[in-house]
Amino acid sequence: MALPIDVVIMAAGKGTRMKSTLPKVLHRLGGRALLAHVMDCAAGVSARQAVVITGHGAIEVEAACAMMAGARGVFDLKFARQEPQLGTGHAVQQAVPLLADDGVTLVLSGDVPLTQAATLQALIDQCDGQRLALLTLAMADPTGYGRIVRTGSQASAQVRAIVEHKDATDEQRKINEIYSGIMAVPTRLLRSWLARLDNKNAQNEYYLTDIVKFAVADGVAVVAHQITDAAQVAGVNSPVQLAELERIYQQRQAVALMEQGVRLADPGRLDVRGMLVCGQDVEIDVNCVFEGHVSLAAGVRVGANCVIANCVIGAGAVIHPFTHIDGEKLGVQVGEGALIGPFARLRPGAQLGAEVHIGNFVEVKNSTLAKGAKANHLAYLGDATVGERVNYGAGSITANYDGANKHRTVIEDDVHIGSNCVLVAPVTIGTGGTVGGGSTITKSTPPESLSVARGKQISLAGWRRPVKVVKG
Amino acid sequence: MALPIDVVIMAAGKGTRMKSTLPKVLHRLGGRALLAHVMDCAAGVSARQAVVITGHGAIEVEAACAMMAGARGVFDLKFARQEPQLGTGHAVQQAVPLLADDGVTLVLSGDVPLTQAATLQALIDQCDGQRLALLTLAMADPTGYGRIVRTGSQASAQVRAIVEHKDATDEQRKINEIYSGIMAVPTRLLRSWLARLDNKNAQNEYYLTDIVKFAVADGVAVVAHQITDAAQVAGVNSPVQLAELERIYQQRQAVALMEQGVRLADPGRLDVRGMLVCGQDVEIDVNCVFEGHVSLAAGVRVGANCVIANCVIGAGAVIHPFTHIDGEKLGVQVGEGALIGPFARLRPGAQLGAEVHIGNFVEVKNSTLAKGAKANHLAYLGDATVGERVNYGAGSITANYDGANKHRTVIEDDVHIGSNCVLVAPVTIGTGGTVGGGSTITKSTPPESLSVARGKQISLAGWRRPVKVVKG
Amino acid sequence: MALPIDVVIMAAGKGTRMKSTLPKVLHRLGGRALLAHVMDCAAGVSARQAVVITGHGAIEVEAACAMMAGARGVFDLKFARQEPQLGTGHAVQQAVPLLADDGVTLVLSGDVPLTQAATLQALIDQCDGQRLALLTLAMADPTGYGRIVRTGSQASAQVRAIVEHKDATDEQRKINEIYSGIMAVPTRLLRSWLARLDNKNAQNEYYLTDIVKFAVADGVAVVAHQITDAAQVAGVNSPVQLAELERIYQQRQAVALMEQGVRLADPGRLDVRGMLVCGQDVEIDVNCVFEGHVSLAAGVRVGANCVIANCVIGAGAVIHPFTHIDGEKLGVQVGEGALIGPFARLRPGAQLGAEVHIGNFVEVKNSTLAKGAKANHLAYLGDATVGERVNYGAGSITANYDGANKHRTVIEDDVHIGSNCVLVAPVTIGTGGTVGGGSTITKSTPPESLSVARGKQISLAGWRRPVKVVKG
Repeated sequence: MALPIDVVIMAAGKGTRMKSTLPKVLHRLGGRALLAHVMDCAAGVSARQAVVITGHGAIEVEAACAMMAGARGVFDLKFARQEPQLGTGHAVQQAVPLLADDGVTLVLSGDVPLTQAATLQALIDQCDGQRLALLTLAMADPTGYGRIVRTGSQASAQVRAIVEHKDATDEQRKINEIYSGIMAVPTRLLRSWLARLDNKNAQNEYYLTDIVKFAVADGVAVVAHQITDAAQVAGVNSPVQLAELERIYQQRQAVALMEQGVRLADPGRLDVRGMLVCGQDVEIDVNCVFEGHVSLAAGVRVGANCVIANCVIGAGAVIHPFTHIDGEKLGVQVGEGALIGPFARLRPGAQLGAEVHIGNFVEVKNSTLAKGAKANHLAYLGDATVGERVNYGAGSITANYDGANKHRTVIEDDVHIGSNCVLVAPVTIGTGGTVGGGSTITKSTPPESLSVARGKQISLAGWRRPVKVVKG
Repeated sequence: MALPIDVVIMAAGKGTRMKSTLPKVLHRLGGRALLAHVMDCAAGVSARQAVVITGHGAIEVEAACAMMAGARGVFDLKFARQEPQLGTGHAVQQAVPLLADDGVTLVLSGDVPLTQAATLQALIDQCDGQRLALLTLAMADPTGYGRIVRTGSQASAQVRAIVEHKDATDEQRKINEIYSGIMAVPTRLLRSWLARLDNKNAQNEYYLTDIVKFAVADGVAVVAHQITDAAQVAGVNSPVQLAELERIYQQRQAVALMEQGVRLADPGRLDVRGMLVCGQDVEIDVNCVFEGHVSLAAGVRVGANCVIANCVIGAGAVIHPFTHIDGEKLGVQVGEGALIGPFARLRPGAQLGAEVHIGNFVEVKNSTLAKGAKANHLAYLGDATVGERVNYGAGSITANYDGANKHRTVIEDDVHIGSNCVLVAPVTIGTGGTVGGGSTITKSTPPESLSVARGKQISLAGWRRPVKVVKG
Repeated sequence: MALPIDVVIMAAGKGTRMKSTLPKVLHRLGGRALLAHVMDCAAGVSARQAVVITGHGAIEVEAACAMMAGARGVFDLKFARQEPQLGTGHAVQQAVPLLADDGVTLVLSGDVPLTQAATLQALIDQCDGQRLALLTLAMADPTGYGRIVRTGSQASAQVRAIVEHKDATDEQRKINEIYSGIMAVPTRLLRSWLARLDNKNAQNEYYLTDIVKFAVADGVAVVAHQITDAAQVAGVNSPVQLAELERIYQQRQAVALMEQGVRLADPGRLDVRGMLVCGQDVEIDVNCVFEGHVSLAAGVRVGANCVIANCVIGAGAVIHPFTHIDGEKLGVQVGEGALIGPFARLRPGAQLGAEVHIGNFVEVKNSTLAKGAKANHLAYLGDATVGERVNYGAGSITANYDGANKHRTVIEDDVHIGSNCVLVAPVTIGTGGTVGGGSTITKSTPPESLSVARGKQISLAGWRRPVKVVKG
């Protein structure tokens, strides 16, 4: 029986220990907000809707959220404000008016990013539209955590209570199963239990966990889905915890890539913040960072210390060390068999054909280079269209910006641009032409010609260089 | 009763296992000599004086020491030579003539860099001007170390002896408390006990630890301050141990930064060698190195693989990956909202105003850039004064060095320098002026003018490029 | 009694879990094929010959192998094809016709790269030309592995059987000694036992381990050389395992370097793929990669994030961060006291004399720089011969390539090349000469002269820059 799933996400907390002006749930893990990871969980269980409970930084959180969900569009996104914050039960109470009784409510935390959809689905299956299902964790040292007290010792035994550490008997303290903060509960039952919550406790808060005792009292089965992977239910409360989860996240991505066949020189020195798609026999050297959408076709090799974002790299291309690629919104394309770097920078709109070579200290932006074109040394290509087999000399620059507008430079097939040239756009260098080293080209040049713009060379014999002025 | 503290620092050893020509205590941890860290300990307990016992490399060590203490100036620094080296007791004997009987002597090792001042203060408190206080460590596996034998099983029980592992009974070998090499002792007692030391042992050395038995014999209480943090008393005897302590040191700095709110992408890939001061919401990506004094204001983001030394970076500035900044003695300043890198290099005396952009393959040295100035591509600015909103073209160079002397280039507000220009200093480009691409400017230019220095462009039709010479 | 050693290397497997088109044994660890490491083992025990059993990718494996062994030339290399693959016993059966009865056969796996020669020698010593000697491993958790059942509890007790986990009694499952897959066996015995193998088992394979029971039946002593270092017998079956062994390999190299006295800022962030030879007092900062043959003389310091291959660096040279050196086959030489980087790139044939300075964004290829020459900023030196004390200006380029052929540039002693010059090869700049900034030099220049090739500087007053075109 697959009831509709409504996800409630707690995202109202301040996150004081983050010591940040950014709301806690918007801190990034793997390049994306914690909350975006939790949204993925909602999508992963095919949620009908997600209700995000906001409070601290509500406007900022809601705006960010809308963009995340907009990008997905797989469930309805709603918000419920919790102001002031009077506890977890109070939080869910804000969401309940937005929930329909025909479904199951899955309660998640906006600061718990690494829960896997399969885990949540198993929890929902345990709930089965009629039970209160708690996600629990077996811990080696559960000191300080609320223990799950079951009616028997079997793994399938029902839950009788969650007992806080300080209230636990010595016997109960030996229990190593704790509550994770995540539950699935039939919405109609949740609604009735929330109505019965009170705040008669030391903190004067409404605790969501109190519904366990109502369930037991009402004779509703309380079950637990126990996991042993603590990272899946770990929350982020401080930069230290954020960094810990970041490393776990990265390690898991590294393993996933290796299991697909990607060779990583050091899985502990890989950062993937977004989506990295790799073909067969891809090799990635130490200390690389990938961001946004990056696709590496078969046989691509990425050297040490590269930062690569938003680009598509063709089969067999070699990215040498210290290469920086960021396609941002326009993207970057690198053709098959291209050689890039070391110390190359490819910027948005760089479209490199097959076997293009971009060498050291070369920047390419918003330019198309056809098959076999080369710019190997200290050069800038911006807003340029470069033909096949062009050799673009060391130190040459497309002067694409006149101080107000950008113009295009066209370099046709088989052109040879000498060293330290300036091509003042708009300008076209005709097919097969050669531009002599040191020339500043302001007018288009005919095909198959040699163009130069140079002063005459003279030498003054016996000239003496300045001598060092001794001060004082 | 706060008696004066005199610190004795053992720094005479050769450190054979370091396999280095550098005296062991001058090897660096966190960018500073081991001995400098120990000096900090002396300062941390408000020592009256520090006596450094030197031997191997004494001249080098003393010279280095004087500079460290000079920088602090918080205690008197003295030296005592120990030649030859006849043991730890012999070492302290060399220092004793420089110590006054009214104080407490704290014995430290110059190769134990990570002791915390609070730990030493607790030890001094235990000494209380009348007891021999030993700093001890509880170890999981104390095999091989001298055990602390107490008069009872309580944590406060007095020490009866230090028993070497080889001399220990089976019962004593179960003791997991060992001596750290650090002690605090009333100077007048120390003096008398040192006079009673002998070297009748296998090594024919005078052991400082022998004073424990004199204290016991004299009825002076011997107490222990026990810690569990082994790193605090770990010594450096080899490059392996040095690297281990370096990692612990860096890890602790990373945690301290995160606890202040700094977001570190990977705490295991951060190196801080000096002082890193961060405002709120600072983010530091993987694999960055900070040296000397670096200050990052609120909201600064530092990209992956940056090396940053001796500079002050303003609020909201973004330092892109692969940026190298080293202000050395002159310092570097980066204004608010500036964008630096990737592949930028800022050298001493670079003073960048707000919203300055320094892009890829650009070097700035001893130059001032006013608000909004930009040098985005492959350029060199040395000994230049650059006005507001200046656009400094790709590939342009300030020729600041005539082979003998350095001269300044002045680029006034709103100037636009084209690509691949050379500005031969001394020269001034007047306000609002434009320099055409490819120009070599040797004379100052008037304001609001276009200046060019260029050859005339010609094209030779039908010119044929050289053909490949086939050798053989 | 030192019998001849013949090594049989299993290298026929497909390595499906590698998910690669490359045969498993050719995957690289520390920059070299797994099989090359195993070849080193063969050389390390002074093998007479090595028989590599190939199957999947046989042609590729054999070709690669021949190059490895050719480079060594210390033993005869032979191949035996195993097609189809019918088990480990079947594999060795293919090799046996190539083996002579006077020797000992050492059976190794081509995917087990980290076995130490000393370990294998100890195994061979146990064999002693008359026993079947198994290399075994003591494991904390041997679940799933075949157990070594001995005739008694003593370390020297003979082996009675290898019992598969699934066939083991509860008592046998408590044994924590397992078989490693490596054995040494008198060849004449091996030959007879292999002839008796059958494939009557669930997999229908011929198992090499079955020879243990024949040995026992024949009254031949079966002995075990037990180690505890699992890495030495760990095989590579997946990219995850490959990465794990890579890290172990790198860690061991880091420790070995440190034990020689090299100071590593972070042993966990060093990659040595080949041979790194270091003099005294060498320091290597974080995240460096060394490839091929690299030699660092005494006192060399290598900054963070360097990638250095195939070069020789002289005493006291400083390699600043972000330096990329690769000498490939020609090699690179860096003279004593040279300063290189940051952001420098030295390519094949760069020969730098003492105290040469190569600064940021400078590329040097196939060029000789004599003592004290400097190229500090944004420059390219290719196919150049540069004299002593030459100052090569920022942005200057040797135009060594005319589109078809490469030519040399000669810059004699004490020359000063200005900024953004182009030296169009072939060309010679005479001793003591100066080339003015922005000059394109196409003809050789006389000594002690000033040479310029420049347009005349003019300024157009009142010139107005283009204004931004607003589109739409």
